[in-house]
Amino acid sequence: MIMFFEYNWQVREEWFKWSEECSPEELARTREGGLGSILRTLVHVVDIEQAWINGLQGIPEFHYNFEDYLTLDKVRDLSRSCRLEVEPFVRNWSEELKDRKFDIFTFGEVMHHVIAHEIHHIGQLSVWSREMGRKPVSANLIFRGLAHS
Amino acid sequence: MIMFFEYNWQVREEWFKWSEECSPEELARTREGGLGSILRTLVHVVDIEQAWINGLQGIPEFHYNFEDYLTLDKVRDLSRSCRLEVEPFVRNWSEELKDRKFDIFTFGEVMHHVIAHEIHHIGQLSVWSREMGRKPVSANLIFRGLAHS
Repeated sequence: MIMFFEYNWQVREEWFKWSEECSPEELARTREGGLGSILRTLVHVVDIEQAWINGLQGIPEFHYNFEDYLTLDKVRDLSRSCRLEVEPFVRNWSEELKDRKFDIFTFGEVMHHVIAHEIHHIGQLSVWSREMGRKPVSANLIFRGLAHS
Repeated sequence: MIMFFEYNWQVREEWFKWSEECSPEELARTREGGLGSILRTLVHVVDIEQAWINGLQGIPEFHYNFEDYLTLDKVRDLSRSCRLEVEPFVRNWSEELKDRKFDIFTFGEVMHHVIAHEIHHIGQLSVWSREMGRKPVSANLIFRGLAHS
């Protein structure tokens, strides 16, 4: 499980880096699909990851407001602070937890859902990137030194 | 591992169904990002999955040509025939295999790569869908009855 989270966190940091080359207007521009803009999509993947993983840790569901994260720096800071909340749980994941119930779901299902959720939204960023005439961040999971994570 | 493959196969079949409501011209239309069209992107996810998973089974690398799969029916047939090749291996996956070497990669890394690869490209289809004014296939992994797969 951790290999996918490591992948998502690496790729997310690379999109933050990629975003540094964008104007604030381009990052906020309304686009078709995803959460409607690059910044909102990045906030969304951070928010959904923290909401579910904190949920598995017994913390009541809470969501961040897009309107509070209107700059790249704020989104990156949010991502890093949320990662501090979720990373220990993810690193301590054990297959013995997978059938434990969380509401109508299993812990395993939730972990898989969170992983797929971010990869899916990152795929959307890649189309917008090409539409802007820019090369997107690589989506490859190989060549990232993750073999033994 | 199987939960993600089940997810990708379900979602892929739903995109085939979604594609039935598209004209052949829309399916083949050149678009920004991905493999440049809906049909080519669908062929690509099928092809990459079979190439890697067959590779892990000792079969030399082989790729299908986009030009041979220019209709939805042909792509769906290709998907189903390739699935017959890969599904037994995926269902028999065991964590003991994950550190086995495949060229410069590990088996585990390849399995993760194949999963992330398809989810990423499906995210691209969802943007094109919105640009066409259509609701995309749901990317949710929850609510698919996969909890115990």
